[in-house]
Amino acid sequence: LTLAYDGTHYAGWQWQPQLATVQGALEKAIQRVVANPVRVVASGRTDAGVHALGQVAQFSCDTQLPTEVLQRAIAAYLPLDVVLLGLSEVPPEFHAIRDARRKRYRYLIVDNQPIGPFERLYAWQLRTALSDENMTRAAATLIGKHDFASFESSGSERASTVRTVLELSVARTEHWRLLSPRPVGQGGELLSIEIEADGFLYNMVRNIVGTLVEVGRGAKPVEWVAEVLLAKNRQAAGPTAPPHGLFLVRVDYDE
Amino acid sequence: LTLAYDGTHYAGWQWQPQLATVQGALEKAIQRVVANPVRVVASGRTDAGVHALGQVAQFSCDTQLPTEVLQRAIAAYLPLDVVLLGLSEVPPEFHAIRDARRKRYRYLIVDNQPIGPFERLYAWQLRTALSDENMTRAAATLIGKHDFASFESSGSERASTVRTVLELSVARTEHWRLLSPRPVGQGGELLSIEIEADGFLYNMVRNIVGTLVEVGRGAKPVEWVAEVLLAKNRQAAGPTAPPHGLFLVRVDYDE
Repeated sequence: LTLAYDGTHYAGWQWQPQLATVQGALEKAIQRVVANPVRVVASGRTDAGVHALGQVAQFSCDTQLPTEVLQRAIAAYLPLDVVLLGLSEVPPEFHAIRDARRKRYRYLIVDNQPIGPFERLYAWQLRTALSDENMTRAAATLIGKHDFASFESSGSERASTVRTVLELSVARTEHWRLLSPRPVGQGGELLSIEIEADGFLYNMVRNIVGTLVEVGRGAKPVEWVAEVLLAKNRQAAGPTAPPHGLFLVRVDYDE
Repeated sequence: LTLAYDGTHYAGWQWQPQLATVQGALEKAIQRVVANPVRVVASGRTDAGVHALGQVAQFSCDTQLPTEVLQRAIAAYLPLDVVLLGLSEVPPEFHAIRDARRKRYRYLIVDNQPIGPFERLYAWQLRTALSDENMTRAAATLIGKHDFASFESSGSERASTVRTVLELSVARTEHWRLLSPRPVGQGGELLSIEIEADGFLYNMVRNIVGTLVEVGRGAKPVEWVAEVLLAKNRQAAGPTAPPHGLFLVRVDYDE
């Protein structure tokens, strides 16, 4: 399954009793079509409030329905804020978590007042202007293969904290301007942080964003990010950025 | 006042008992600051579900507060989906409706499946692909000074149905792509219709959009729009496009 969802009204991906979750919504929809209980596994769990443009998930079932019919039927039972973009059959050995080769995230920030009514659920609002130039320089420190222990929130049990960041860019973008009350070139641009890696630790993107923002707002010098990385200690990094600015853009697998 | 609002959760601009309205939310916020009842008048009422990026409204009050302080205080009492972008003092003879010289609206359409979860409240979803080329040709017919009686829904009492459309453009745009699950160039573009005029009849934008869509989806030829205009009869035009794709972008006044 390839999925896009607005995480605003969900307590995250993972099924929880009594709470609206993306996994719960999906399993409910699929069960109405295939008529037996299924368990859906995503490439990774997204936290409460985090959005997805291209999450990948899988499930097993016995059905005679062609994938196209199956996709349309499941889509029809999903809530409007969870969209099924694609469905295809995979070999039985495929595993959505283990086989993921690369993931891409996007984080949106509005750093000048006032935030528009259409950004409030999809971007972190900051009252100070950020230096995207300094953030870009600081971000360069994190590109490559490093031990990202400083950027891992507690609560995960991964054996290694070494990951390879393939891309980390900070850019002003006008690509929201259709819904921006501010004219282009006059503060109508969002700050978009794009990050791609071979894997992510728990809260890694939000911790990196929180750290880069410390540099962007001038609270820390550009060189500080290298110190944070070397410390291999969560206490050294900046705060965790809020979930609602984060989007899981894409998950890549081998052909 | 200059205002942006997400119309999704409002029964329109105009105050109504028991219902959430933008006017109601504003008056409540202003009264908490100036401590006496006020009546807020907008450049025009927007219908339920219609959004605004730059609505203009006015009210009168006696206060010693500088406008900057007044703006910040009112803004603090507004719900998150109504944003006060600006506040300034105007001469006593200023009238938000009468003195408006030009208004600009935007209408967003997604014309290929699947619609993303972030567009669903802000764009009209159509299952057929639209020809923006034919829509642009048809739109040209409507530019200029015409009697737009065919595009006026009943329920208004305007003396004249003649208006001057200064701009009417139909364009594919990538400017939503930050929140689009579809890659750019592969159907990730929205259709954006921009219209500016010296004034608008009731539902005029939504009736024009509904009519252009008839051409875009091939149900009517390009030339049909000229016939609709000449008919001066609402029955001749296409259906009214739904409110949630419509944005009031800007209202212009004389210096």
